[in-house]
Amino acid sequence: MHGLTLHEDRVSGNAYKVRLIASLLNITIHEFFQYEISKGETRTSDFLSKINANGRIPVLQVGPDRYLPESNAACYYLATDSRLMPSDPWKHAQMLQWMFFEQSFVEPTIGTLRYWFKRTGEDNFSQEQQVVSPSKRESAEAALQVMDAHLATRDFFVDEEMTLADAVLYAYVHLAPEAGLDLACWTNLHAWCRRISSQSGFVSMDYPEADAT
Amino acid sequence: MHGLTLHEDRVSGNAYKVRLIASLLNITIHEFFQYEISKGETRTSDFLSKINANGRIPVLQVGPDRYLPESNAACYYLATDSRLMPSDPWKHAQMLQWMFFEQSFVEPTIGTLRYWFKRTGEDNFSQEQQVVSPSKRESAEAALQVMDAHLATRDFFVDEEMTLADAVLYAYVHLAPEAGLDLACWTNLHAWCRRISSQSGFVSMDYPEADAT
Repeated sequence: MHGLTLHEDRVSGNAYKVRLIASLLNITIHEFFQYEISKGETRTSDFLSKINANGRIPVLQVGPDRYLPESNAACYYLATDSRLMPSDPWKHAQMLQWMFFEQSFVEPTIGTLRYWFKRTGEDNFSQEQQVVSPSKRESAEAALQVMDAHLATRDFFVDEEMTLADAVLYAYVHLAPEAGLDLACWTNLHAWCRRISSQSGFVSMDYPEADAT
Repeated sequence: MHGLTLHEDRVSGNAYKVRLIASLLNITIHEFFQYEISKGETRTSDFLSKINANGRIPVLQVGPDRYLPESNAACYYLATDSRLMPSDPWKHAQMLQWMFFEQSFVEPTIGTLRYWFKRTGEDNFSQEQQVVSPSKRESAEAALQVMDAHLATRDFFVDEEMTLADAVLYAYVHLAPEAGLDLACWTNLHAWCRRISSQSGFVSMDYPEADAT
């Protein structure tokens, strides 16, 4: 594998997914470039023409001209043929099911609310944020409920061991408190978070390598 | 492959994705069950306990107790090892990139606007719909622009031939006019739509098999 570079914002849960999978699989990311979304650093003409025309991070760079946006696609690329990826087609399909669930029902609810709370602050919400945040919260709670019920009879989302689905879901689920959601209300998810953080190779979001570049 | 059943709402673009991929690959879906979302038919206790705890369609049933929610996961399952799925890891990663792009930037913008226009009607929009619809339209236009620019130098999204990424993107892109967006403004996408609809095995959204059950 060519030397890997991660174009990211260190506070992004989507970027943490990529760092977490790399760490779990003992894959080295050689370089990290930081961008501040709020300063428009992912909307410069250079970024748009070269790194991601969609103006978003994280982007995993896997070669001189090979840029891979979409965190879950980057995670899949890193985890291909690894212990995190079931080869059985039915389990593989369920892994993808939960990865698409994450991108549709977790990231746009918990992730967006967290971003608004951290970056804007509730006192400075726009009219749109004021109107939308209650339904985002309701959708976040519904997603947490679906995941919690799913874990009532199993330790991990798809298989008897952790898969890529668990790793990508963990990123925003464990950040739920920063979106104003108390994970103690969802006991199975709470226990699952502890299970993930005790995995060999696990790194937390604020691990020191992030300061290296 | 066990006999396949699709739990769907015939007007759903997400359900159309699954029908389209099956048709392109000459895979028979044996049974179709229709649910009206607006009547709460995907929120009954029977549906939630058996078919999808997340209360959404489409769900591809691939065996007596095997239900697969998330349209893009169902499409991936159907297309595994087919001509629509590149085996090269880099192309495969790009295919997934566009499938996650679809679920993050196309379905929640074009798909949601279309649903609101068709099911609610602009005159009956709630306060939230009134506040959110302009930014959804803006995000839809931005996504169409990214896709149109990507197609300026290529016939398909990932490879020289159609892949699964093209098929899943087609579902909501070709429905953009029903969300109030005129595709004629994006000439590359417009030409790509015609390219997709001329593929062997293509079926339109209103093909008659949908009336069979």
